Amino acid sequence: MDRLYLSKRGMEVEASPIRKLVPFAEEAKKRGIKVYHINIGQPDIPTPPFILEAMRAFSNPVLPYGPSQGLLELRQAIAEYFKRYNVNIDPCEVFITSGGSEAIFFTFLATMDPGDEVLIPEPYYTNYNGFANMAGVRIVPIPTDVESGFHLPDAEDIEKLVTSRTRAILLCSPNNPTGAVYTEDEYKRIKKIAEKYNLYIISDEVYREFIFNNTKPFSVLKLDTEPERLIVIDSISKRFSACGARIGFIATKNRKILANILKYGQARLCPPTIEQYGAIEGYKRLDEFLPDMIEEYKRRRDAAFEVIDNTPDIFALKPDGAFYAVLKLPVKDADHFAKWLLSDFNYDGKTVMVAPAKPFYRSENKGMSEVRIAYVLESRLMREALEILVMGLKEYKKKGLG
Amino acid sequence: MDRLYLSKRGMEVEASPIRKLVPFAEEAKKRGIKVYHINIGQPDIPTPPFILEAMRAFSNPVLPYGPSQGLLELRQAIAEYFKRYNVNIDPCEVFITSGGSEAIFFTFLATMDPGDEVLIPEPYYTNYNGFANMAGVRIVPIPTDVESGFHLPDAEDIEKLVTSRTRAILLCSPNNPTGAVYTEDEYKRIKKIAEKYNLYIISDEVYREFIFNNTKPFSVLKLDTEPERLIVIDSISKRFSACGARIGFIATKNRKILANILKYGQARLCPPTIEQYGAIEGYKRLDEFLPDMIEEYKRRRDAAFEVIDNTPDIFALKPDGAFYAVLKLPVKDADHFAKWLLSDFNYDGKTVMVAPAKPFYRSENKGMSEVRIAYVLESRLMREALEILVMGLKEYKKKGLG
Repeated sequence: MDRLYLSKRGMEVEASPIRKLVPFAEEAKKRGIKVYHINIGQPDIPTPPFILEAMRAFSNPVLPYGPSQGLLELRQAIAEYFKRYNVNIDPCEVFITSGGSEAIFFTFLATMDPGDEVLIPEPYYTNYNGFANMAGVRIVPIPTDVESGFHLPDAEDIEKLVTSRTRAILLCSPNNPTGAVYTEDEYKRIKKIAEKYNLYIISDEVYREFIFNNTKPFSVLKLDTEPERLIVIDSISKRFSACGARIGFIATKNRKILANILKYGQARLCPPTIEQYGAIEGYKRLDEFLPDMIEEYKRRRDAAFEVIDNTPDIFALKPDGAFYAVLKLPVKDADHFAKWLLSDFNYDGKTVMVAPAKPFYRSENKGMSEVRIAYVLESRLMREALEILVMGLKEYKKKGLG
Repeated sequence: MDRLYLSKRGMEVEASPIRKLVPFAEEAKKRGIKVYHINIGQPDIPTPPFILEAMRAFSNPVLPYGPSQGLLELRQAIAEYFKRYNVNIDPCEVFITSGGSEAIFFTFLATMDPGDEVLIPEPYYTNYNGFANMAGVRIVPIPTDVESGFHLPDAEDIEKLVTSRTRAILLCSPNNPTGAVYTEDEYKRIKKIAEKYNLYIISDEVYREFIFNNTKPFSVLKLDTEPERLIVIDSISKRFSACGARIGFIATKNRKILANILKYGQARLCPPTIEQYGAIEGYKRLDEFLPDMIEEYKRRRDAAFEVIDNTPDIFALKPDGAFYAVLKLPVKDADHFAKWLLSDFNYDGKTVMVAPAKPFYRSENKGMSEVRIAYVLESRLMREALEILVMGLKEYKKKGLG
């Protein structure tokens, strides 16, 4: 070797596309512009105080390694929590992870070998790409689009994507970045395909309760198929508004998968200890804060869509869940538009930061005109942010930039 | 596929060998036997109270995502801490991880591709195997042995192991599991080899200050070579007696490696937030607790070696650092002996749990007669535990089991 080696995978793994525009926002702020951040899923809603209190109450004189699979009391609280959705899961079928992030990664490691494939509806959470890179697995996108509200295509269109290396279908519903909530019919479709080709259904359910229509929160663990096929990924980040806690979990009845995940878990020793005590309280006292939180996100979605629905130039079907929406804008290059909003535009000293949607797609040339917004500002500000976006669109077009 | 796929790597990754004997210990306890645990590196020394206090003082109403590279204030505190060892590192050259575990894994990802090789002196920390499995890289052991106090072999013996796929040499000094502290001469030897073959030197320095002779704490960052070659892995787990905090870091002047590690870090969002505030206090107030802690470990080592040195049947050179030692016992199969201690032996209602050393070796048939002990009991109990071990050895031999 004539130089120090840099790994190919390290060069290939993508930088967070959501954070890429940050320097432009910083510059805008330096110029005295107020920037409305609706680009990132960092909730502003206070963490329920008793969750933080439970973390503070940690009084052991030593902060020791916990069990690799997480504290039994937390796994029991999670098993108990699932009962409200008529899901029967044993505490020993729950594995606590360092955030939903590690849950995804460990699930990839246990279900796939390098070169294996996982089907994921696109657009999808960009960090799946990072874990796929780490695990050496290939993401094969299932196309969905803004026109159909990002619902799943017909079975035959999905089946066309299955190869001898396909091991799993990964769903996220309510969806980041689209807000789509899959219907019973869609779950049945996926179930049939999974059974036909013997695939896992990996279900990222971190937004489980974030539903704004009359649909009940759902878990794939209820699907009528071999229970070993079903692996749920979850996290307290959004549900408890506690992103910095880094507590997530895997829930599955597949004991072989659990055994292998435990071995990976032992290698990294344990998830953070103190935050697990907070999470226990959160699951026990969910009803004290979650309904209000969901109501608040619904108000914000409605405020945003008051503006969107009154702007014929923006296309989006009002999504039913999560706290995101993907909007199709009358611009050729939403990435350029998003940068321009930060560097060249302001309305009354204010501008807005959105996330270009292209990086959420894997297929080339998709999502070029789309952006993702997150309902992370209260209704009044959310409405104002969207109004500024509309104003920006007008000016962008007037200048012939679109 | 006629069945759900289980990944080959998931089947191959090893269960924690240290935890394998746990059920036997549980059984012993059920029979009313007192078990002295000197098998695992879980310190009993209290976490400095002001570190826990700083975690409790977190008063932000939202527990948000932190920066992917960790809080600037913590990275500054670490840069400041390195100055005491005449190491000049910038806060932007420090990357905070979820424990030393993630630091090792990210370093593997950034410096090696699947199939690449890293040289590691054996016996070594068994969890390196887990991260090698995750990253698909191969560990090639550099043999060291109990007779030479686990010091490194001659340069030519190490060079024989270098292939076209070798990317790095990973050192851990003071060493887990052997307690060995490498000499200046050994570091020079490694440096020359690394330069000759253009390899990284990855240095796991989590026990940096755990030295019981007159050697000063050392970091490879001081080595006189291209700074880009040097990557330090560290953790607060042992230094602050805070294993459950899951705070570690990578320190390197290699900006390309840092850029790629940042991308992996963005995929998993951030390390735990609250514990970082505790770590800041720990680094700022190190002198208030660390010298006493080291002194305490030294007393324990000395207590253990009072017994060991008086037992001709046990061979071990008194190690200079960390809080472990590997002992060669007059038994054929230390694994069997360790199990026997738990299931069939007690002295006055007491027995001792040690970690068989074989799993710390990668080469076949090495370490069969060896066990690792950890100084995680106070001197009096440490001495008693070793006395019970000696008693066990006598009985084991008398019964003709050895």
